[in-house]
Amino acid sequence: MKAVQYREPGVAPQVVTVPEPEAGPGQVLLAVTAAGVCHSDIAVMGMPVEQLGFPLPLTLGHEGVGTVAALGAGVTGLTVGEQVAVYGPWGCGRCAACAEGRENYCRRAADLGIFPPGLGAPGAMAEYMVVDDPRHLVPLDGLDPVAAVPLTDAGLTPYHAVKRSLPKLVPGSTAVVIGAGGLGHVAIQLLRAMTAAQVIALDVADAKLALAREVGAHETVRSDAHAAAAVRERTGGLGAQVVLDFVGAPPTAAAAGAMAAAEADVTVVGLGGGALPVGFGTTAYEVSVCAPYWGSRAELAEVLALARAGAVTVHTETYGIDEAPLAYERLHQGKINGRAVILPRG
Amino acid sequence: MKAVQYREPGVAPQVVTVPEPEAGPGQVLLAVTAAGVCHSDIAVMGMPVEQLGFPLPLTLGHEGVGTVAALGAGVTGLTVGEQVAVYGPWGCGRCAACAEGRENYCRRAADLGIFPPGLGAPGAMAEYMVVDDPRHLVPLDGLDPVAAVPLTDAGLTPYHAVKRSLPKLVPGSTAVVIGAGGLGHVAIQLLRAMTAAQVIALDVADAKLALAREVGAHETVRSDAHAAAAVRERTGGLGAQVVLDFVGAPPTAAAAGAMAAAEADVTVVGLGGGALPVGFGTTAYEVSVCAPYWGSRAELAEVLALARAGAVTVHTETYGIDEAPLAYERLHQGKINGRAVILPRG
Amino acid sequence: MKAVQYREPGVAPQVVTVPEPEAGPGQVLLAVTAAGVCHSDIAVMGMPVEQLGFPLPLTLGHEGVGTVAALGAGVTGLTVGEQVAVYGPWGCGRCAACAEGRENYCRRAADLGIFPPGLGAPGAMAEYMVVDDPRHLVPLDGLDPVAAVPLTDAGLTPYHAVKRSLPKLVPGSTAVVIGAGGLGHVAIQLLRAMTAAQVIALDVADAKLALAREVGAHETVRSDAHAAAAVRERTGGLGAQVVLDFVGAPPTAAAAGAMAAAEADVTVVGLGGGALPVGFGTTAYEVSVCAPYWGSRAELAEVLALARAGAVTVHTETYGIDEAPLAYERLHQGKINGRAVILPRG
Amino acid sequence: MKAVQYREPGVAPQVVTVPEPEAGPGQVLLAVTAAGVCHSDIAVMGMPVEQLGFPLPLTLGHEGVGTVAALGAGVTGLTVGEQVAVYGPWGCGRCAACAEGRENYCRRAADLGIFPPGLGAPGAMAEYMVVDDPRHLVPLDGLDPVAAVPLTDAGLTPYHAVKRSLPKLVPGSTAVVIGAGGLGHVAIQLLRAMTAAQVIALDVADAKLALAREVGAHETVRSDAHAAAAVRERTGGLGAQVVLDFVGAPPTAAAAGAMAAAEADVTVVGLGGGALPVGFGTTAYEVSVCAPYWGSRAELAEVLALARAGAVTVHTETYGIDEAPLAYERLHQGKINGRAVILPRG
Repeated sequence: MKAVQYREPGVAPQVVTVPEPEAGPGQVLLAVTAAGVCHSDIAVMGMPVEQLGFPLPLTLGHEGVGTVAALGAGVTGLTVGEQVAVYGPWGCGRCAACAEGRENYCRRAADLGIFPPGLGAPGAMAEYMVVDDPRHLVPLDGLDPVAAVPLTDAGLTPYHAVKRSLPKLVPGSTAVVIGAGGLGHVAIQLLRAMTAAQVIALDVADAKLALAREVGAHETVRSDAHAAAAVRERTGGLGAQVVLDFVGAPPTAAAAGAMAAAEADVTVVGLGGGALPVGFGTTAYEVSVCAPYWGSRAELAEVLALARAGAVTVHTETYGIDEAPLAYERLHQGKINGRAVILPRG
Repeated sequence: MKAVQYREPGVAPQVVTVPEPEAGPGQVLLAVTAAGVCHSDIAVMGMPVEQLGFPLPLTLGHEGVGTVAALGAGVTGLTVGEQVAVYGPWGCGRCAACAEGRENYCRRAADLGIFPPGLGAPGAMAEYMVVDDPRHLVPLDGLDPVAAVPLTDAGLTPYHAVKRSLPKLVPGSTAVVIGAGGLGHVAIQLLRAMTAAQVIALDVADAKLALAREVGAHETVRSDAHAAAAVRERTGGLGAQVVLDFVGAPPTAAAAGAMAAAEADVTVVGLGGGALPVGFGTTAYEVSVCAPYWGSRAELAEVLALARAGAVTVHTETYGIDEAPLAYERLHQGKINGRAVILPRG
Repeated sequence: MKAVQYREPGVAPQVVTVPEPEAGPGQVLLAVTAAGVCHSDIAVMGMPVEQLGFPLPLTLGHEGVGTVAALGAGVTGLTVGEQVAVYGPWGCGRCAACAEGRENYCRRAADLGIFPPGLGAPGAMAEYMVVDDPRHLVPLDGLDPVAAVPLTDAGLTPYHAVKRSLPKLVPGSTAVVIGAGGLGHVAIQLLRAMTAAQVIALDVADAKLALAREVGAHETVRSDAHAAAAVRERTGGLGAQVVLDFVGAPPTAAAAGAMAAAEADVTVVGLGGGALPVGFGTTAYEVSVCAPYWGSRAELAEVLALARAGAVTVHTETYGIDEAPLAYERLHQGKINGRAVILPRG
Repeated sequence: MKAVQYREPGVAPQVVTVPEPEAGPGQVLLAVTAAGVCHSDIAVMGMPVEQLGFPLPLTLGHEGVGTVAALGAGVTGLTVGEQVAVYGPWGCGRCAACAEGRENYCRRAADLGIFPPGLGAPGAMAEYMVVDDPRHLVPLDGLDPVAAVPLTDAGLTPYHAVKRSLPKLVPGSTAVVIGAGGLGHVAIQLLRAMTAAQVIALDVADAKLALAREVGAHETVRSDAHAAAAVRERTGGLGAQVVLDFVGAPPTAAAAGAMAAAEADVTVVGLGGGALPVGFGTTAYEVSVCAPYWGSRAELAEVLALARAGAVTVHTETYGIDEAPLAYERLHQGKINGRAVILPRG
């Protein structure tokens, strides 16, 4: 079968032919219908190979949707032909975090050598993929595969960030989204669907600010040195109750801290190398700051339910599997509008 | 000044002339701009007088909005001329519940003889009213008095019920509102504004079901012996995660229990004399059932913020103070469409 | 191998010889070191056989601890020889409840024909048992098998009930435990270890009240018609913030409601056929009542951690596998002091 | 009457004679029975006077306990002769934070010129003090004034920090207390009384480590460059679920971050000028970091309830009012063992 692989450092992803995998005991074989192309793939391909922790070649694709093609021995409760989305941050399934479905924070994955598909294990950018356990599959229940696939990361990650802060997003509160790109424009939709908070979006680009308004931001503010003051002005001087930083660069992290109200949540999602120092007097009182990673099993099902209800949409461009290298090239050049999706069988 | 009083058992409310009150130390005098007419006033006027716990005459009106007319000695932080809504369920301000603003559950109110205005203390159906403490006032901040006044009870009560259950109202969940009348049609709006849950409304009357759809219910179901089955059918057999019963009669309470999913919340708000028995096997596992009363100080501010954002509207009919007895008569006859509001100064 | 089976209605459990089971793909074979004898086994054996939903014979034992004897194909992350406790309320592993480890409330177990071991699936009262998935195993990490085994139900069930109510058990609050028997005397220990609440135990028997004091109850009250008044007296008239009813009979459920403070939690755990009606005025304001079942995967690990820290102990009597029928007989006669544990290999 | 005042920059506190104050409308006059001496007084006296925001002289004492001596006009629900503790972080009483009793985070205090007693308003180090509102008083209900007074800050501040993190302190978790001094040794007691977590205390001084063990720490670790590794070792490599840093210096903040497990809470309470940077990769995943201030009204009542139950004790040294300057001198020299308490009437 065809697969898109990262084969050697410094070389772009290639479409190669590999043997079709089989579902071992307890595993599930998917015929992949859609796989998402993500910036973090590019980040991984830019890392020194000795830091990866897993050998090359790597079949890419940590966002995947497919049709159940075969059940490994012992698998029950699933039907061949069912359409499913893949929960990516695989864990051990048994530690304290996994026992509540937060496999993104598995305590044992590193020790046991467990990696997400496409980020260590063979990923979704192939005609078939093997999923290690049926618990990592969520039914599509009628969702379109192309529409659904980016939700498994670009939807789940902002959903997890928003969900943490729901108790603070009471009516009358303000949520700020910094960066109205791939994840940020989903976050705006999630905030509008799940809360009555005022939503303010920040970005450096006019087109992104226009997109932010289109998907529901009540107000938009240019992301510059005056942004924190602008947010304070729009919140009666108090600041925002929640700030989600999808850029995570030094200036956005600093601005996030400066615009946070007392008792606010600041969540740094972006990988831009920024960090917000937290100590007495560095922010308003009891501003709680964290940097999360991906989301939980239950949260993926909730994100898909939101999409099913029409409350969240990701703009996508589709590519055949042979065009996957082109999709990565265009992503690298900043030319993808929304999310690129590979159709391995299309 | 004129006041609407319940003066003797069996006699309808009367418009009488009483001395203008003054704000004592720590109190606030309001020039009342709007006062709500509520079913519970009729319930109180129907109770044996010896059960009331307070003497007659009683100036009615537990929903009130007004303009600060005078500050009692020692009151700070308020300005004469400010427009405010009155938080009605007054408490001692110091017990464990009051210390967190849940004065609706004050541990000492009964012992100290503290009553809500219009339900023991002189209420809002008069040209002026005295509020015992500035903490019981929430700024209108631009809200229209007539639009705001029903929110202090008919808005706050369903808001409190909804807020209890927000953690269960994740995307993909279902909330059922039984009774799409005064409180129920507000609850539907609150659920739509604050959650992404599917909202199903139940009522016995077609007009109420139409209103429910108009204010945002995704589905409506006739409230009869088949209602629980209909809700299960619309939830893949699981039942609803939250059921809010604004009727509270024996059949609605039973139906609420029958349509609740495992781990659901059932909240009985209506005073219809029903009760749902909770024990092993009476409902699905761990269905949590309670009967709350009114809401908290912070919640009133949140409800007003929702109205300011345009997310909740109560249909109102206005009456001059001399027409208040007529308003009560029409309410008693079921002729009020939405909420009757008295304009004591209009 | 030997197994203790319920073979036909009206006949006591029998020790029989059955083939040794094998671990299929994805399953785990345990050499059972301890199995608990529980009242609910007797309840099941008393039910009409057509209501059981599963065929006889049934190997008993829903509380089990063992040594990993063999791993089915595809099982990773476990080692032969490891000592583990079995999480009993098996679910599908994938529905909304299972995705967060609350398999006790699996939405699909009934449809898929999934039963707990000893309550439908072959249980722990045998030399070997098969566990359907490694996620249902929690490491003993040094705990004694006999001490640990009753915690999987008689510990987990009260733990789940207590954990629901922790936010209400602030310093100065009161928790009431009705019934200081098998589960109740564990609940008292849990409340003392995990909260600073005052703990009041109720029972009809002096010996149980003495046991309650011994394991940490601050006060004991005879469980009779005066009990609610006695609890109010010990709580300054307010009532208890949490009431856990491990009897669940009509009089205890009624007393639980009568002694609950405003905003309290009442949790009916016992299967005594009682139920507390909840509606306006049936209890203090917003008393929240539910009837839960068993507990979650994460909670079982937490209960075992408590035992490891010495904070909870269950008194046990041990029996060889041939004595299992005797143990059931003594349990039925009320002669077991604490919990009977079968040692299938001892 | 005598009062201890900070009168001019660079000059130590002085005992002076000032007029006895009177309770204005809505206020309460206390005959002070005990007042606490705190490091933050010294910090305030070391600040440039123009940064204080209030004029000198300042009567010191933000920890106070007294007997109600007189009620201002309009005050109800309190009795002359009642013994009460003063809640110090006064707020407006009406904003979103104050409406839930978190007056420590009042949104309007700065604008309205509201200061805590002893930190802007006249404090407790005098024979009498005026409390602005009865809501700022919590009944002692039998607690000894000297034992109770340090709890109003040195108890309430760690209590607030601990309470934030209770959901993470499940059995099997670990809490680290950095700095076993005034606040830290209270935190250890709180953690032991309210949770079943393992408690590890860190300090640089042997005497403090001994004190930590005495008040309940399960383990102690020297606070140095190896501390984070030592904590990881004692937690199976995972790190602590909660880290409370009562020093807040650059090295302790860094160590706090380094020893925090994924999803941990780190709370920086100390004013030592340190800060922990939070961004992707600076700590384990989703470590949530904040720097709180004091505590809420309800929390003060809860801390006093804990003391009443014997679960928390602060070592105290008492001084007459004329010895207050000496107490400050000894505190400055690090010679106070526990907390110095002034007896203004003793």
